[in-house]
Amino acid sequence: MKNIKADAKHIQNWLEHINSFNSTPDFGTTRVLFTKPEVAARDYVKSEMRALGMTVKEDAIGNIFGIYEGTDPTLPPVWTGSHIDTVLNAGMFDGMSGVVAGLEAVRMIRTAGVQTARSIVVIVYTSEEPTRFKLGCLGSRAMAGKLGAEDAKKLHDDDGKTLYDVLDELGFPVDAFDEVPVKRGAVHGAVELHIDQTGVLERDRKTIGIVKTICAPSVFDVVVTGRQSHAGGTSMDERRDAYMAASEMALMLEHLGRTSTSEYTTVTVGRVDVIPNAVNVIPGCVKFSIDIRDCDFDKKNELIGRMKKALSEIAERRGVTYELTEYNNDHPMKCEPAITQKIEAACKAQGISYEYTISGAFHDSMLVGEFAPVAMIFVPSKDGISHSPEEWTGYDDLAAGTDVLADTLIAMANE
Amino acid sequence: MKNIKADAKHIQNWLEHINSFNSTPDFGTTRVLFTKPEVAARDYVKSEMRALGMTVKEDAIGNIFGIYEGTDPTLPPVWTGSHIDTVLNAGMFDGMSGVVAGLEAVRMIRTAGVQTARSIVVIVYTSEEPTRFKLGCLGSRAMAGKLGAEDAKKLHDDDGKTLYDVLDELGFPVDAFDEVPVKRGAVHGAVELHIDQTGVLERDRKTIGIVKTICAPSVFDVVVTGRQSHAGGTSMDERRDAYMAASEMALMLEHLGRTSTSEYTTVTVGRVDVIPNAVNVIPGCVKFSIDIRDCDFDKKNELIGRMKKALSEIAERRGVTYELTEYNNDHPMKCEPAITQKIEAACKAQGISYEYTISGAFHDSMLVGEFAPVAMIFVPSKDGISHSPEEWTGYDDLAAGTDVLADTLIAMANE
Repeated sequence: MKNIKADAKHIQNWLEHINSFNSTPDFGTTRVLFTKPEVAARDYVKSEMRALGMTVKEDAIGNIFGIYEGTDPTLPPVWTGSHIDTVLNAGMFDGMSGVVAGLEAVRMIRTAGVQTARSIVVIVYTSEEPTRFKLGCLGSRAMAGKLGAEDAKKLHDDDGKTLYDVLDELGFPVDAFDEVPVKRGAVHGAVELHIDQTGVLERDRKTIGIVKTICAPSVFDVVVTGRQSHAGGTSMDERRDAYMAASEMALMLEHLGRTSTSEYTTVTVGRVDVIPNAVNVIPGCVKFSIDIRDCDFDKKNELIGRMKKALSEIAERRGVTYELTEYNNDHPMKCEPAITQKIEAACKAQGISYEYTISGAFHDSMLVGEFAPVAMIFVPSKDGISHSPEEWTGYDDLAAGTDVLADTLIAMANE
Repeated sequence: MKNIKADAKHIQNWLEHINSFNSTPDFGTTRVLFTKPEVAARDYVKSEMRALGMTVKEDAIGNIFGIYEGTDPTLPPVWTGSHIDTVLNAGMFDGMSGVVAGLEAVRMIRTAGVQTARSIVVIVYTSEEPTRFKLGCLGSRAMAGKLGAEDAKKLHDDDGKTLYDVLDELGFPVDAFDEVPVKRGAVHGAVELHIDQTGVLERDRKTIGIVKTICAPSVFDVVVTGRQSHAGGTSMDERRDAYMAASEMALMLEHLGRTSTSEYTTVTVGRVDVIPNAVNVIPGCVKFSIDIRDCDFDKKNELIGRMKKALSEIAERRGVTYELTEYNNDHPMKCEPAITQKIEAACKAQGISYEYTISGAFHDSMLVGEFAPVAMIFVPSKDGISHSPEEWTGYDDLAAGTDVLADTLIAMANE
């Protein structure tokens, strides 16, 4: 927009206010789905949406829609937004930046008195992070028709509570779960602003990343069972040590990730539970997670095949058994060129540097892409760090990204 | 003894009764120092001691002494006994067998009307397992003068409670901590019956193992610090993954244990805590324990030297840092030939098969050996499994071991 610019101070205030809802103020930010801080953050965002003249709606799974009405509300609207839940001990930008950029874009459009034909909807997707229910993108997954009431009754947190019961207790209209899925054609297009999580923008000194492809995760749980026994009494030859097997499996997974021939592949073991976890006991059981991302679905599946073979080989050689459970194996999402071209045009018009990039992290846009054209705008994050208290993005970079977002939304909403 | 034999039924009853005091009845036996079940088990053992005509005393750190008086109470007494605390999800024999064998030996001596010159003392040593305070052999360590009131004020459990405060709350005479250490010469000799934890007796089809040397543990904590970051957003090349570093360290430690040139060496990583422990976050920190046992002190220290070099090399190559904390580095204990010869003579007299062996596990006898001549009697355990719900020793084997123990105690108490 020519006559108005995004205000870094507004963005900072909103982000800091959302960040004040935090379960771990001494060690980064933790805001887990439907905990007290997360519900308080939702209430805050909804009140800010209303203050900007938006109508607020929520669906059965808790997705928040802030609707800024266009001149023709019968046209399919334009969406933007992200999430406000976090992993454990995270930062204050991942997710929240996209929601706040949406709020600031609407503020700019409203202040400038710009009229658009289509409505602009700022969305807070429910639980992009898998922190509580071990599955990410709950809200957008339900919108894509991939998570219904029956699934919500099966998903449970570490305390055994189901997603369905939690939603019901909080007063969400769980009887209307059937209305959550969004029909293809009902949304004109969706664009999500997010922090870069690779460090590539910072390295290349670009302010904007225009995402070509969002990598898709495959998530597995592995349970390795050996023989629990006494650390001193069991000779090295007689051991069936579940942890040593799990360690060898972890290093094998790292090797597969490092030697992949795909344009972008990551393999991570992030969660490890050792049983019984005592100094002088050889672990009898180890449970660990595997998180694989790839921008190429076929190459990801090839890697998974090699992984399965290697897991069997290690288990057999070490006299342990293992169980592998697949949670999801999603397809990478190609972004819509008609939108990425608008983002590029906005960057050029505003004189903001940019480059095309790949998103190693997955986002709600991956699932929104199943029913609507999508694109993503990345802004730099310091050292590419995220999911960490050290996560940082400059407020000026966020303002530049918001300027690009606002132009893109207006262009989309007027076509 | 010729006219009376150990009764397997008595032994079974005592063991099953002690085992009923258990925090995890659904998964093995857990009886952690000074928890309710452990205190209840102490009370039960003390009442059984009294029923056998023994005088019961306790010291400041909670060691229990059941004194069966000899004809000359001025002579240094003969000791036997073991412990009744367990690791998490353990079995019902490790430790308890030695206490129960002591009770049954006294019952036999009393029933047979055998008089001994020296008193026979059945001892329950406080917390042989390091489960609660991360340090094993608390009771015998204090007897050996290696754990005083000031140390007890520093040792704390996971809830931050100190050993000293726990003892004080339970009414132990903490003001008398100075009286816990036992003077050299005050005990004529100590013999501990314990289950074999190597499987060697079962493999060699021997009923009794006469221990030559008790391996000494060295316990370390390692804290590896990398960089916590996003699983999808951080490329494989940019990672400083604390868990992959810890996995490589674990396999290096296993290799050092396997390639040791000592007669008996074990290296174990039993406790591993990954932070923040989430599926989609590259671990920023991993804390793990190292437990090294060896029957040769010099070879153990050589191995520790190699370990330190390899830890540094791995950390440097992977761009992580680490801190190594040593908790203890004990000396292996040679058993007293004057006692092992009596054990051998008892085996021969009773026609019970035996062999000389090494104890890979450490025991209170290792610390008692610092102020008194010691020896140990091993009985077979199924598959050499211990510290596990699968731990099992036949009651007939325990009875045979008790027959050997009783003869040994009488011989010692009459010299």
